[in-house]
Amino acid sequence: MGRPSKALLDRERIAATALDLVDAEGDFSVPKIARRLGVQTASVYHHVEGRAGIVELLRVRIAEDIDASTLELRPWDLALEAWARSYRAAFAAHPRAIPLLTTSQIAAPEVLAQYEQGVATLLEAGFALESVMPVITAMENIVLGSALDLAAPEIMWQPNPDGSTPLLAQALAAVPGPGRADQAFEIALTAFLDHVRALVPTATA
Amino acid sequence: MGRPSKALLDRERIAATALDLVDAEGDFSVPKIARRLGVQTASVYHHVEGRAGIVELLRVRIAEDIDASTLELRPWDLALEAWARSYRAAFAAHPRAIPLLTTSQIAAPEVLAQYEQGVATLLEAGFALESVMPVITAMENIVLGSALDLAAPEIMWQPNPDGSTPLLAQALAAVPGPGRADQAFEIALTAFLDHVRALVPTATA
Repeated sequence: MGRPSKALLDRERIAATALDLVDAEGDFSVPKIARRLGVQTASVYHHVEGRAGIVELLRVRIAEDIDASTLELRPWDLALEAWARSYRAAFAAHPRAIPLLTTSQIAAPEVLAQYEQGVATLLEAGFALESVMPVITAMENIVLGSALDLAAPEIMWQPNPDGSTPLLAQALAAVPGPGRADQAFEIALTAFLDHVRALVPTATA
Repeated sequence: MGRPSKALLDRERIAATALDLVDAEGDFSVPKIARRLGVQTASVYHHVEGRAGIVELLRVRIAEDIDASTLELRPWDLALEAWARSYRAAFAAHPRAIPLLTTSQIAAPEVLAQYEQGVATLLEAGFALESVMPVITAMENIVLGSALDLAAPEIMWQPNPDGSTPLLAQALAAVPGPGRADQAFEIALTAFLDHVRALVPTATA
Protein backbone atom coordinates (compact mmCIF):
# COMPACT_ATOMS: atom_id res chain seq x y z
CA MET A 1 0.00 0.00 0.00
CA GLY A 2 1.68 3.18 -1.17
CA ARG A 3 1.79 6.54 0.46
CA PRO A 4 -1.61 8.17 0.00
CA SER A 5 -1.84 11.12 -2.31
CA LYS A 6 -3.03 14.40 -0.80
CA ALA A 7 -6.21 14.07 -2.82
CA LEU A 8 -6.93 10.61 -1.44
CA LEU A 9 -6.47 11.40 2.21
CA ASP A 10 -7.28 14.71 3.79
CA ARG A 11 -9.28 15.88 6.75
CA GLU A 12 -12.43 16.28 4.67
CA ARG A 13 -12.34 12.65 3.59
CA ILE A 14 -11.55 11.46 7.09
CA ALA A 15 -14.50 13.43 8.47
CA ALA A 16 -16.87 12.18 5.79
CA THR A 17 -15.83 8.57 6.38
CA ALA A 18 -16.08 8.88 10.16
CA LEU A 19 -19.57 10.37 9.80
CA ASP A 20 -20.66 7.54 7.49
CA LEU A 21 -19.46 5.02 10.07
CA VAL A 22 -21.18 6.82 12.95
CA ASP A 23 -24.44 7.11 11.01
CA ALA A 24 -24.37 3.41 10.20
CA GLU A 25 -22.76 1.85 13.27
CA GLY A 26 -22.95 4.42 16.07
CA ASP A 27 -19.19 4.85 16.30
CA PHE A 28 -15.96 4.97 14.29
CA SER A 29 -12.46 3.69 14.81
CA VAL A 30 -9.28 4.94 13.21
CA PRO A 31 -8.44 1.50 11.73
CA LYS A 32 -11.92 1.30 10.19
CA ILE A 33 -11.54 4.74 8.65
CA ALA A 34 -8.14 3.75 7.26
CA ARG A 35 -9.52 0.52 5.81
CA ARG A 36 -12.36 2.35 4.06
CA LEU A 37 -9.95 4.89 2.63
CA GLY A 38 -7.46 2.20 1.60
CA VAL A 39 -4.59 3.64 3.63
CA GLN A 40 -2.53 2.61 6.66
CA THR A 41 -3.92 3.51 10.07
CA ALA A 42 -0.79 5.55 10.76
CA SER A 43 -1.53 7.68 7.69
CA VAL A 44 -4.80 8.82 9.25
CA TYR A 45 -2.92 9.94 12.35
CA HIS A 46 -0.76 12.21 10.18
CA HIS A 47 -3.83 14.32 9.49
CA VAL A 48 -5.68 14.43 12.81
CA GLU A 49 -4.81 14.59 16.48
CA GLY A 50 -5.99 11.15 17.46
CA ARG A 51 -9.52 10.01 18.03
CA ALA A 52 -10.49 13.26 19.77
CA GLY A 53 -9.37 15.14 16.66
CA ILE A 54 -11.77 13.12 14.55
CA VAL A 55 -14.63 13.76 16.98
CA GLU A 56 -13.93 17.47 16.53
CA LEU A 57 -13.99 17.07 12.74
CA LEU A 58 -17.44 15.50 13.10
CA ARG A 59 -18.54 18.37 15.32
CA VAL A 60 -17.39 20.96 12.78
CA ARG A 61 -19.05 19.10 9.96
CA ILE A 62 -22.43 18.93 11.67
CA ALA A 63 -22.16 22.48 13.06
CA GLU A 64 -21.65 23.72 9.49
CA ASP A 65 -25.28 22.80 8.90
CA ILE A 66 -26.42 25.06 11.75
CA ASP A 67 -27.30 28.50 10.42
CA ALA A 68 -25.21 30.73 12.70
CA SER A 69 -26.61 33.85 11.06
CA THR A 70 -29.80 33.17 13.07
CA LEU A 71 -27.88 34.58 16.04
CA GLU A 72 -27.79 37.98 14.34
CA LEU A 73 -31.59 38.23 14.38
CA ARG A 74 -33.22 40.63 16.83
CA PRO A 75 -34.96 40.64 19.24
CA TRP A 76 -32.78 38.09 21.02
CA ASP A 77 -35.58 35.59 21.61
CA LEU A 78 -36.20 35.38 17.87
CA ALA A 79 -32.48 34.67 17.45
CA LEU A 80 -32.52 31.98 20.11
CA GLU A 81 -35.61 30.36 18.66
CA ALA A 82 -34.25 30.32 15.10
CA TRP A 83 -30.88 29.01 16.29
CA ALA A 84 -32.65 26.21 18.19
CA ARG A 85 -34.63 25.18 15.12
CA SER A 86 -31.60 25.14 12.85
CA TYR A 87 -29.51 23.33 15.49
CA ARG A 88 -32.19 20.65 15.82
CA ALA A 89 -32.38 20.06 12.07
CA ALA A 90 -28.60 19.70 11.77
CA PHE A 91 -28.39 17.05 14.48
CA ALA A 92 -31.56 15.24 13.46
CA ALA A 93 -29.68 14.24 10.31
CA HIS A 94 -27.02 12.49 12.43
CA PRO A 95 -28.69 11.27 15.62
CA ARG A 96 -26.05 8.66 16.40
CA ALA A 97 -23.34 11.32 16.47
CA ILE A 98 -25.11 13.06 19.36
CA PRO A 99 -23.77 10.97 22.27
CA LEU A 100 -20.27 10.99 20.78
CA LEU A 101 -20.24 14.78 20.60
CA THR A 102 -21.92 15.44 23.93
CA THR A 103 -19.42 13.31 25.82
CA SER A 104 -16.24 15.00 24.60
CA GLN A 105 -14.92 18.52 25.13
CA ILE A 106 -15.62 21.14 22.50
CA ALA A 107 -12.33 22.41 21.10
CA ALA A 108 -13.05 23.27 17.46
CA PRO A 109 -12.54 27.05 16.95
CA GLU A 110 -15.38 27.26 14.41
CA VAL A 111 -17.82 25.75 16.89
CA LEU A 112 -16.56 27.83 19.81
CA ALA A 113 -17.07 30.93 17.66
CA GLN A 114 -20.73 30.03 17.35
CA TYR A 115 -21.04 29.76 21.14
CA GLU A 116 -19.24 33.10 21.47
CA GLN A 117 -21.94 34.63 19.31
CA GLY A 118 -24.68 32.96 21.35
CA VAL A 119 -23.19 34.28 24.59
CA ALA A 120 -22.90 37.78 23.09
CA THR A 121 -26.56 37.69 22.05
CA LEU A 122 -27.73 36.75 25.55
CA LEU A 123 -25.48 39.26 27.31
CA GLU A 124 -26.70 42.02 25.02
CA ALA A 125 -30.27 40.96 25.90
CA GLY A 126 -29.54 41.55 29.57
CA PHE A 127 -29.03 38.01 30.90
CA ALA A 128 -26.90 37.78 34.04
CA LEU A 129 -23.43 36.47 33.17
CA GLU A 130 -23.82 33.40 35.40
CA SER A 131 -27.11 32.42 33.78
CA VAL A 132 -25.86 32.42 30.19
CA MET A 133 -24.27 28.97 29.98
CA PRO A 134 -27.09 27.24 31.92
CA VAL A 135 -29.63 28.87 29.55
CA ILE A 136 -27.69 27.83 26.45
CA THR A 137 -27.23 24.30 27.81
CA ALA A 138 -30.93 24.00 28.67
CA MET A 139 -31.72 24.96 25.08
CA GLU A 140 -29.26 22.38 23.80
CA ASN A 141 -30.85 19.67 25.97
CA ILE A 142 -34.22 20.37 24.38
CA VAL A 143 -32.69 20.60 20.91
CA LEU A 144 -30.70 17.37 21.13
CA GLY A 145 -33.49 15.40 22.81
CA SER A 146 -35.85 16.61 20.08
CA ALA A 147 -33.32 15.85 17.34
CA LEU A 148 -33.18 12.24 18.52
CA ASP A 149 -36.96 12.16 18.54
CA LEU A 150 -37.14 13.60 15.04
CA ALA A 151 -35.07 10.62 13.89
CA ALA A 152 -37.47 8.22 15.64
CA PRO A 153 -40.16 6.21 13.86
CA GLU A 154 -43.39 8.19 13.42
CA ILE A 155 -45.16 5.31 15.18
CA MET A 156 -43.00 4.93 18.25
CA TRP A 157 -45.26 2.86 20.51
CA GLN A 158 -46.83 -0.50 19.78
CA PRO A 159 -49.62 -0.75 22.40
CA ASN A 160 -49.84 -4.20 23.92
CA PRO A 161 -52.05 -6.31 21.63
CA ASP A 162 -53.59 -7.95 24.71
CA GLY A 163 -55.42 -4.69 25.46
CA SER A 164 -53.50 -4.06 28.68
CA THR A 165 -52.60 -0.49 27.66
CA PRO A 166 -55.98 0.95 26.60
CA LEU A 167 -55.29 4.55 27.63
CA LEU A 168 -51.98 4.60 25.77
CA ALA A 169 -53.75 3.28 22.67
CA GLN A 170 -56.39 6.03 22.95
CA ALA A 171 -53.81 8.77 23.54
CA LEU A 172 -51.79 7.63 20.54
CA ALA A 173 -54.88 7.51 18.31
CA ALA A 174 -55.81 11.04 19.39
CA VAL A 175 -52.55 12.68 18.25
CA PRO A 176 -53.68 14.74 15.26
CA GLY A 177 -51.98 13.65 12.03
CA PRO A 178 -48.26 13.14 11.63
CA GLY A 179 -45.72 15.39 13.30
CA ARG A 180 -45.81 14.01 16.85
CA ALA A 181 -42.13 14.94 17.18
CA ASP A 182 -42.74 18.48 15.97
CA GLN A 183 -45.62 18.99 18.40
CA ALA A 184 -43.47 17.85 21.31
CA PHE A 185 -40.60 20.11 20.25
CA GLU A 186 -42.95 23.10 20.04
CA ILE A 187 -44.17 22.44 23.59
CA ALA A 188 -40.64 22.21 24.98
CA LEU A 189 -39.31 25.17 22.98
CA THR A 190 -42.28 27.43 23.76
CA ALA A 191 -42.00 26.54 27.44
CA PHE A 192 -38.27 27.28 27.39
CA LEU A 193 -38.58 30.63 25.61
CA ASP A 194 -41.42 31.81 27.88
CA HIS A 195 -39.37 30.84 30.92
CA VAL A 196 -36.14 32.54 29.87
CA ARG A 197 -37.93 35.70 28.73
CA ALA A 198 -38.86 36.13 32.37
CA LEU A 199 -35.15 36.01 33.32
CA VAL A 200 -34.30 39.32 31.69
CA PRO A 201 -35.44 42.76 32.90
CA THR A 202 -37.06 43.93 29.67
CA ALA A 203 -39.02 41.08 28.18
CA THR A 204 -39.61 41.30 24.45
CA ALA A 205 -42.75 39.18 24.50
CA MET B 1 -18.13 -25.28 21.05
CA GLY B 2 -20.88 -27.23 22.82
CA ARG B 3 -24.48 -26.36 23.26
CA PRO B 4 -24.72 -23.63 25.91
CA SER B 5 -26.24 -24.53 29.22
CA LYS B 6 -29.36 -22.64 30.27
CA ALA B 7 -27.30 -20.94 32.97
CA LEU B 8 -24.69 -19.77 30.49
CA LEU B 9 -27.04 -18.23 27.99
CA ASP B 10 -30.31 -16.58 28.84
CA ARG B 11 -31.97 -13.28 28.09
CA GLU B 12 -30.48 -11.68 31.19
CA ARG B 13 -26.95 -12.44 30.07
CA ILE B 14 -27.66 -11.38 26.51
CA ALA B 15 -29.04 -8.07 27.76
CA ALA B 16 -26.11 -7.47 30.11
CA THR B 17 -23.60 -8.22 27.36
CA ALA B 18 -25.38 -6.02 24.82
CA LEU B 19 -25.46 -3.18 27.34
CA ASP B 20 -21.74 -3.56 28.05
CA LEU B 21 -21.04 -3.36 24.32
CA VAL B 22 -23.29 -0.32 23.84
CA ASP B 23 -21.74 1.48 26.81
CA ALA B 24 -18.24 0.83 25.46
CA GLU B 25 -18.70 0.99 21.70
CA GLY B 26 -22.02 2.71 21.03
CA ASP B 27 -23.62 -0.37 19.49
CA PHE B 28 -23.84 -4.15 19.69
CA SER B 29 -24.03 -6.93 17.14
CA VAL B 30 -25.37 -10.42 17.64
CA PRO B 31 -22.06 -12.05 16.58
CA LYS B 32 -20.18 -9.89 19.10
CA ILE B 33 -22.58 -10.86 21.88
CA ALA B 34 -22.18 -14.53 20.94
CA ARG B 35 -18.38 -14.23 20.95
CA ARG B 36 -18.35 -12.65 24.39
CA LEU B 37 -20.63 -15.34 25.76
CA GLY B 38 -18.65 -18.09 24.06
CA VAL B 39 -21.59 -19.43 22.08
CA GLN B 40 -22.62 -19.66 18.44
CA THR B 41 -24.43 -16.68 16.95
CA ALA B 42 -27.41 -18.92 16.18
CA SER B 43 -27.70 -19.78 19.87
CA VAL B 44 -28.34 -16.13 20.69
CA TYR B 45 -31.18 -16.08 18.18
CA HIS B 46 -32.84 -18.95 20.04
CA HIS B 47 -33.42 -16.61 22.96
CA VAL B 48 -34.40 -13.31 21.35
CA GLU B 49 -36.35 -12.13 18.33
CA GLY B 50 -33.46 -10.77 16.31
CA ARG B 51 -31.69 -7.51 16.78
CA ALA B 52 -34.91 -5.65 17.59
CA GLY B 53 -35.53 -8.11 20.41
CA ILE B 54 -32.18 -7.26 21.94
CA VAL B 55 -32.89 -3.53 21.68
CA GLU B 56 -36.09 -4.20 23.64
CA LEU B 57 -34.12 -6.13 26.26
CA LEU B 58 -31.90 -3.07 26.65
CA ARG B 59 -34.95 -0.85 26.96
CA VAL B 60 -36.44 -3.04 29.70
CA ARG B 61 -33.13 -3.18 31.56
CA ILE B 62 -32.71 0.61 31.61
CA ALA B 63 -36.40 1.23 32.31
CA GLU B 64 -36.10 -1.00 35.39
CA ASP B 65 -33.97 1.77 36.89
CA ILE B 66 -36.77 4.31 36.44
CA ASP B 67 -38.88 4.51 39.58
CA ALA B 68 -42.38 3.99 38.17
CA SER B 69 -43.92 4.48 41.60
CA THR B 70 -43.24 8.21 41.10
CA LEU B 71 -46.29 8.17 38.82
CA GLU B 72 -48.50 7.36 41.80
CA LEU B 73 -47.58 10.64 43.51
CA ARG B 74 -50.20 13.40 43.61
CA PRO B 75 -50.70 16.13 42.56
CA TRP B 76 -49.94 15.09 39.00
CA ASP B 77 -47.22 17.68 38.46
CA LEU B 78 -45.26 16.27 41.38
CA ALA B 79 -45.60 12.84 39.76
CA LEU B 80 -44.41 14.14 36.40
CA GLU B 81 -41.47 15.96 37.96
CA ALA B 82 -40.35 12.95 40.00
CA TRP B 83 -40.74 10.63 37.00
CA ALA B 84 -38.63 13.01 34.89
CA ARG B 85 -35.85 13.07 37.48
CA SER B 86 -35.75 9.30 37.85
CA TYR B 87 -35.98 8.80 34.08
CA ARG B 88 -33.01 11.15 33.57
CA ALA B 89 -30.85 9.35 36.13
CA ALA B 90 -31.55 5.95 34.57
CA PHE B 91 -30.52 7.06 31.09
CA ALA B 92 -27.57 9.17 32.24
CA ALA B 93 -25.94 5.88 33.27
CA HIS B 94 -26.14 4.64 29.66
CA PRO B 95 -25.96 7.67 27.36
CA ARG B 96 -24.87 5.71 24.31
CA ALA B 97 -27.97 3.55 24.50
CA ILE B 98 -30.16 6.62 24.00
CA PRO B 99 -30.00 6.90 20.18
CA LEU B 100 -30.45 3.14 19.82
CA LEU B 101 -33.61 3.18 21.91
CA THR B 102 -35.09 6.37 20.49
CA THR B 103 -34.82 5.12 16.92
CA SER B 104 -36.70 1.86 17.37
CA GLN B 105 -40.33 1.16 18.24
CA ILE B 106 -41.24 0.49 21.84
CA ALA B 107 -42.73 -2.99 22.14
CA ALA B 108 -41.70 -4.22 25.61
CA PRO B 109 -44.85 -4.77 27.72
CA GLU B 110 -43.11 -3.65 30.92
CA VAL B 111 -42.13 -0.34 29.33
CA LEU B 112 -45.53 0.18 27.70
CA ALA B 113 -47.11 -0.37 31.12
CA GLN B 114 -45.10 2.58 32.44
CA TYR B 115 -46.40 4.78 29.60
CA GLU B 116 -49.94 3.56 30.34
CA GLN B 117 -49.51 4.80 33.89
CA GLY B 118 -48.13 8.13 32.67
CA VAL B 119 -51.07 8.60 30.32
CA ALA B 120 -53.51 7.71 33.12
CA THR B 121 -51.89 10.30 35.40
CA LEU B 122 -52.24 13.07 32.81
CA LEU B 123 -55.80 12.17 31.85
CA GLU B 124 -56.82 12.14 35.50
CA ALA B 125 -55.21 15.59 35.81
CA GLY B 126 -57.48 16.89 33.08
CA PHE B 127 -55.20 17.01 30.06
CA ALA B 128 -56.97 16.80 26.70
CA LEU B 129 -56.53 13.33 25.18
CA GLU B 130 -54.74 14.70 22.09
CA SER B 131 -52.22 16.61 24.19
CA VAL B 132 -51.07 13.69 26.33
CA MET B 133 -48.50 12.07 24.02
CA PRO B 134 -47.00 15.41 22.88
CA VAL B 135 -46.64 16.42 26.56
CA ILE B 136 -45.00 13.12 27.50
CA THR B 137 -42.72 13.29 24.46
CA ALA B 138 -41.70 16.88 25.24
CA MET B 139 -40.76 15.74 28.74
CA GLU B 140 -38.75 12.86 27.29
CA ASN B 141 -36.90 15.23 24.96
CA ILE B 142 -35.80 17.31 27.94
CA VAL B 143 -34.98 14.23 29.99
CA LEU B 144 -32.92 12.50 27.30
CA GLY B 145 -31.10 15.67 26.22
CA SER B 146 -30.27 16.31 29.87
CA ALA B 147 -29.22 12.71 30.44
CA LEU B 148 -26.69 13.04 27.63
CA ASP B 149 -25.49 16.28 29.17
CA LEU B 150 -25.17 14.67 32.61
CA ALA B 151 -22.76 12.19 31.02
CA ALA B 152 -20.73 15.04 29.50
CA PRO B 153 -17.44 16.32 30.93
CA GLU B 154 -17.97 18.96 33.65
CA ILE B 155 -15.73 21.25 31.60
CA MET B 156 -17.36 20.97 28.21
CA TRP B 157 -15.87 23.98 26.42
CA GLN B 158 -12.21 24.81 25.90
CA PRO B 159 -12.29 28.53 25.02
CA ASN B 160 -9.90 29.38 22.19
CA PRO B 161 -6.47 29.98 23.72
CA ASP B 162 -5.91 32.82 21.24
CA GLY B 163 -8.47 34.91 23.16
CA SER B 164 -10.94 34.96 20.28
CA THR B 165 -13.83 33.80 22.50
CA PRO B 166 -13.62 36.22 25.47
CA LEU B 167 -17.33 36.31 26.29
CA LEU B 168 -17.59 32.51 26.28
CA ALA B 169 -14.62 32.36 28.66
CA GLN B 170 -16.30 34.88 30.99
CA ALA B 171 -19.65 33.11 30.87
CA LEU B 172 -18.00 29.77 31.64
CA ALA B 173 -16.03 31.25 34.55
CA ALA B 174 -19.23 32.75 35.97
CA VAL B 175 -21.13 29.45 36.28
CA PRO B 176 -21.27 28.95 40.05
CA GLY B 177 -19.47 25.78 41.16
CA PRO B 178 -20.00 22.37 39.61
CA GLY B 179 -23.38 21.17 38.45
CA ARG B 180 -23.69 23.05 35.16
CA ALA B 181 -25.72 20.11 33.82
CA ASP B 182 -28.05 20.15 36.81
CA GLN B 183 -28.66 23.90 36.49
CA ALA B 184 -29.56 23.50 32.83
CA PHE B 185 -31.90 20.60 33.57
CA GLU B 186 -33.66 22.64 36.28
CA ILE B 187 -34.25 25.49 33.81
CA ALA B 188 -35.70 23.18 31.17
CA LEU B 189 -37.78 21.14 33.63
CA THR B 190 -39.16 24.18 35.48
CA ALA B 191 -40.04 25.80 32.17
CA PHE B 192 -41.77 22.63 31.00
CA LEU B 193 -43.78 22.12 34.20
CA ASP B 194 -44.89 25.76 34.32
CA HIS B 195 -45.97 25.54 30.70
CA VAL B 196 -47.94 22.32 30.99
CA ARG B 197 -49.63 23.38 34.24
CA ALA B 198 -51.26 26.08 32.14
CA LEU B 199 -52.67 23.41 29.80
CA VAL B 200 -55.08 21.96 32.38
CA PRO B 201 -58.17 23.73 33.72
CA THR B 202 -57.32 23.50 37.43
CA ALA B 203 -53.65 24.24 37.90
CA THR B 204 -52.07 22.86 41.05
CA ALA B 205 -49.35 25.47 41.22
